[in-house]
Amino acid sequence: MKAKISIICIGVRDFEKSRSFYRDGLGFPTHNYMMGDDHAMFAMEGAWLSLYPRDKLAADAGAPSDGAGFSGVTFAHNVSSKERVDLLFTELIGAGAKPIKSPQDAAWGGYHAYFADPDGYLWEIAYNPFTDLT
Amino acid sequence: MKAKISIICIGVRDFEKSRSFYRDGLGFPTHNYMMGDDHAMFAMEGAWLSLYPRDKLAADAGAPSDGAGFSGVTFAHNVSSKERVDLLFTELIGAGAKPIKSPQDAAWGGYHAYFADPDGYLWEIAYNPFTDLT
Repeated sequence: MKAKISIICIGVRDFEKSRSFYRDGLGFPTHNYMMGDDHAMFAMEGAWLSLYPRDKLAADAGAPSDGAGFSGVTFAHNVSSKERVDLLFTELIGAGAKPIKSPQDAAWGGYHAYFADPDGYLWEIAYNPFTDLT
Repeated sequence: MKAKISIICIGVRDFEKSRSFYRDGLGFPTHNYMMGDDHAMFAMEGAWLSLYPRDKLAADAGAPSDGAGFSGVTFAHNVSSKERVDLLFTELIGAGAKPIKSPQDAAWGGYHAYFADPDGYLWEIAYNPFTDLT
């Protein structure tokens, strides 16, 4: 596993308010954002920042969204193919990561899996056919 | 403000267990770690990952550590001088960021300030005289 965090995704309660805060307040440039989208990515130097409604982010990871056990933040490590998602997930579970969601097609059109670190922070292993952040 | 997350710091409950997980399990390289340290940084491609005991991270930010209001994760945006911490903090508060900790010397030897985004996620504006991640 390359030592890289591709994306940090934060679950937000008021999407428009948060999008405005990061775009207008902090001045981060959005990537391919279209009005009405319920998800925004900011093209950053290094790890990208992504916003998603908190309940949807929890659902995407298969985690409860009620605070307990879900910090509201996920870390994504992107790889270049579905097969690499499968291989890396198996490798990391063998190394002690806690499986949360087994490798599968993702609702957003990619392929992914989730594991938890010792504190329950969620990491997504993702293949994204649209944007290469590997 | 440059669109860059310099460091993601996660508050951990069992430091040695988490350090081992990220170093040995995921294979991330530590930066200047010495046995006995209660803080570890991993030199990553892009944003670095940092581990710190959860209660100490909350205290560093001046946030309660009991879950409510503290996700356990902070984002650091590093700048090149104390003056830039002051200037950027003032600018961001003017842009709508919620002040959490005003610019001041940090216990770890640098200089920093904290603000919160609309969901309460904490961002540190930091000048680190030891490691340049600007």
